[in-house]
Amino acid sequence: MAPPLKIGIAGLGTVGAGVVRMLARRAEAIAARVGRPVEVVAVSARDRARPRDCDLEGMRWYDDAVELARDPDIDVFVELIGGPDGIAKAAVEAAIAAGHSVATANKALLAHHGVELAAAAEAKGVSIHFEAAVAGGIPVIKTLREALLGNEITRVSGILNGTCNYILTRMQEEGLSFDTCLDQAQKLGYAEADPTFDVDGFDTAHKLALLAALAFGVKPDPEAIHIEGIRSITLADIEAADELGYRIKLLGVAARTGDQVELRVHPTMVPKHWPIAQVSGVTNAVAIDGDAVALTLVGPGAGGDATASAVVADLCDAAAGTGGAPFGWKASSLQPAEKAAIRRHEGGYYIRLAAVDRPGTAAAIARHMAEQNISLESIMQHRRGRPHGGERAESAEDPAPVVLITYATNEHAVRRAIEAIEIDGVIASPPQVIRIEKD
Amino acid sequence: MAPPLKIGIAGLGTVGAGVVRMLARRAEAIAARVGRPVEVVAVSARDRARPRDCDLEGMRWYDDAVELARDPDIDVFVELIGGPDGIAKAAVEAAIAAGHSVATANKALLAHHGVELAAAAEAKGVSIHFEAAVAGGIPVIKTLREALLGNEITRVSGILNGTCNYILTRMQEEGLSFDTCLDQAQKLGYAEADPTFDVDGFDTAHKLALLAALAFGVKPDPEAIHIEGIRSITLADIEAADELGYRIKLLGVAARTGDQVELRVHPTMVPKHWPIAQVSGVTNAVAIDGDAVALTLVGPGAGGDATASAVVADLCDAAAGTGGAPFGWKASSLQPAEKAAIRRHEGGYYIRLAAVDRPGTAAAIARHMAEQNISLESIMQHRRGRPHGGERAESAEDPAPVVLITYATNEHAVRRAIEAIEIDGVIASPPQVIRIEKD
Repeated sequence: MAPPLKIGIAGLGTVGAGVVRMLARRAEAIAARVGRPVEVVAVSARDRARPRDCDLEGMRWYDDAVELARDPDIDVFVELIGGPDGIAKAAVEAAIAAGHSVATANKALLAHHGVELAAAAEAKGVSIHFEAAVAGGIPVIKTLREALLGNEITRVSGILNGTCNYILTRMQEEGLSFDTCLDQAQKLGYAEADPTFDVDGFDTAHKLALLAALAFGVKPDPEAIHIEGIRSITLADIEAADELGYRIKLLGVAARTGDQVELRVHPTMVPKHWPIAQVSGVTNAVAIDGDAVALTLVGPGAGGDATASAVVADLCDAAAGTGGAPFGWKASSLQPAEKAAIRRHEGGYYIRLAAVDRPGTAAAIARHMAEQNISLESIMQHRRGRPHGGERAESAEDPAPVVLITYATNEHAVRRAIEAIEIDGVIASPPQVIRIEKD
Repeated sequence: MAPPLKIGIAGLGTVGAGVVRMLARRAEAIAARVGRPVEVVAVSARDRARPRDCDLEGMRWYDDAVELARDPDIDVFVELIGGPDGIAKAAVEAAIAAGHSVATANKALLAHHGVELAAAAEAKGVSIHFEAAVAGGIPVIKTLREALLGNEITRVSGILNGTCNYILTRMQEEGLSFDTCLDQAQKLGYAEADPTFDVDGFDTAHKLALLAALAFGVKPDPEAIHIEGIRSITLADIEAADELGYRIKLLGVAARTGDQVELRVHPTMVPKHWPIAQVSGVTNAVAIDGDAVALTLVGPGAGGDATASAVVADLCDAAAGTGGAPFGWKASSLQPAEKAAIRRHEGGYYIRLAAVDRPGTAAAIARHMAEQNISLESIMQHRRGRPHGGERAESAEDPAPVVLITYATNEHAVRRAIEAIEIDGVIASPPQVIRIEKD
């Protein structure tokens, strides 16, 4: 058997300790499968004294992750520190400079600095593995890189943030408001005290940037992504979607449209019968459309064990010699991602308007839609106060909500129509607009 | 760039022609990703004159697949002939003997002769790739072999036969009988003129045998699998399942139970909210439960393009040097698969009885269940003739159907209870028994 692949791990939180345990527990199976043992020989963390649920016996200890990264007697440096800059970036750069391959769960680092790190890795002939950075335990990186190589990818879309999906699922199933569900998510540890990064879509955008690089060869760049979070979603929207046969999900979508790649993160109405619509709670899902195969992968998007499983898979690939350009395409050949011109987006739209209750309102709304050549699939007065209540009484004294579903149109037309309706003064508050994804 | 990987393809039907086209169309991307071109240099099929939707210019032609397999100037032999024996087996054996790796979509060949072929391949230091043999375009082999290597797998279950899932979906959605749906499947080309291989579960069993080898290290052996098909499923069962919150699917299940691996193929009630329950039509799905990650993969289980995509992925892996023991474990270390003692199966049961309409019937049924220590979760008189009709009137003059759902028990107890009920003479026809899978 070949000599062991020697691993250094920086960061011994839930994931890091999980990797140490998993490599020990599965040592025999892994060695048999990849042809050599995979052994942790050195570790680093902030506090050496902290009790940890893993056996560090015989491993070299470093207080400084950068020093660990430079250890000449490791083959692969595992970065589980987190953050787009600082020590995580310095350590990964040091590891690459020292000729070590890297495995990381750090989506922020790669979303912001992926191109330069990939170029450095290619120059040194080492690889960067990041299965754990996107959708936790779901092997979406491997699937895009390897399993679908015969396919031209046309679209990748996914539920990539468990916090948002938990909140939207609770709202839908229990009839609770966004604020109540966010509060519960925080109490359960699914959301941070400052939930911005999750609920405003930035976490999803980081992951989408990495998927888009693999699928379409565009540079990872969060700035190029149109991002909307889920704070604006109300129970009225959730209920109207349900009646119309949809679920509302925060999706990250990367799609080829003509010679552009459209990158967007926003609440999306998806048909109930889509596999992705059924994904509830903190679970993640990714749908990949290729010209030969359309796949949906469903699984845990976070959690120590699931993330450790992805890191271990990366280490097994490193041991087996699987590598190549980190994003599947040479860093120098990655194209700049152009900021999605969201006003050029084409598709169906859900529009909820708080219409004032006076004669001519409906006619005015319909006329402004027609002026923009928007055809309406349905127009409905949204019923209020479903029997099982919850917090659903909240909108009882609002103006009458009118819900429109459009046939495929473009966002520019929708925004122009809404501007005209607002000028008419027939709606009482800003409209809600949610894009629809369909077959 | 390294020299090309040279491919010989035997069998130029829909899949074979699809592979030739896909390798040509994606030549540049594949070469960039795997570091060398992948080129078809030789082909073989029965009828040279037949028009084909692919360009065979410059490829050597063989009338005999075995001769192609021996061509010293190929690296990988692709077997797309089919069948467990005959020319397919002879050609794969010849390829291995000649020192060529093999990629095949032939589940029957590997289910019956996988161990000896794997041993031969290992002895020659070549690999056998078979992503296309299970669940078509879904990368379940790669996921089990590579992505979940950190996991101890506890269960693999799946909808592995599109024909059966099409029939069950049509029955459920349209209220049509099994015979009507089979007839439609045949007209659409989803089922063969002789549908036995699909509807009686043998195709699912072949695929399950391969998944079980990868997941649990047991020898592929269809004889070790308990197999029941879907011919016995009636609309009454489909409707009762729906009312109780389930869907009926033909599942292949490989599960570790103690120190045994239980292998079974049978109609199964799965909770409606499971991702696998939502999979409709000819689509396939595989659920993999590991100790760290539970995944569900959904995608096309058949079709020329999807199967070609899987073959091309295998060829890319071969080009990248990914190989190893065909079933992930050395052929000599694979354990014999023991025939599942289905009477020891533990779980919940759905039991539908055609109870004769006389006093004491319900009491007698309940008593016999209690005598076997079977607790009932529910007992219901199944309603008939839902409004939207279809063929649902068919059972109108049957005795009153009684549906029981048991809590977890074992099959031996269920069978004994039913025997006792039959001896009592309180049911008018043989009972229907369907196993339930739950979280």
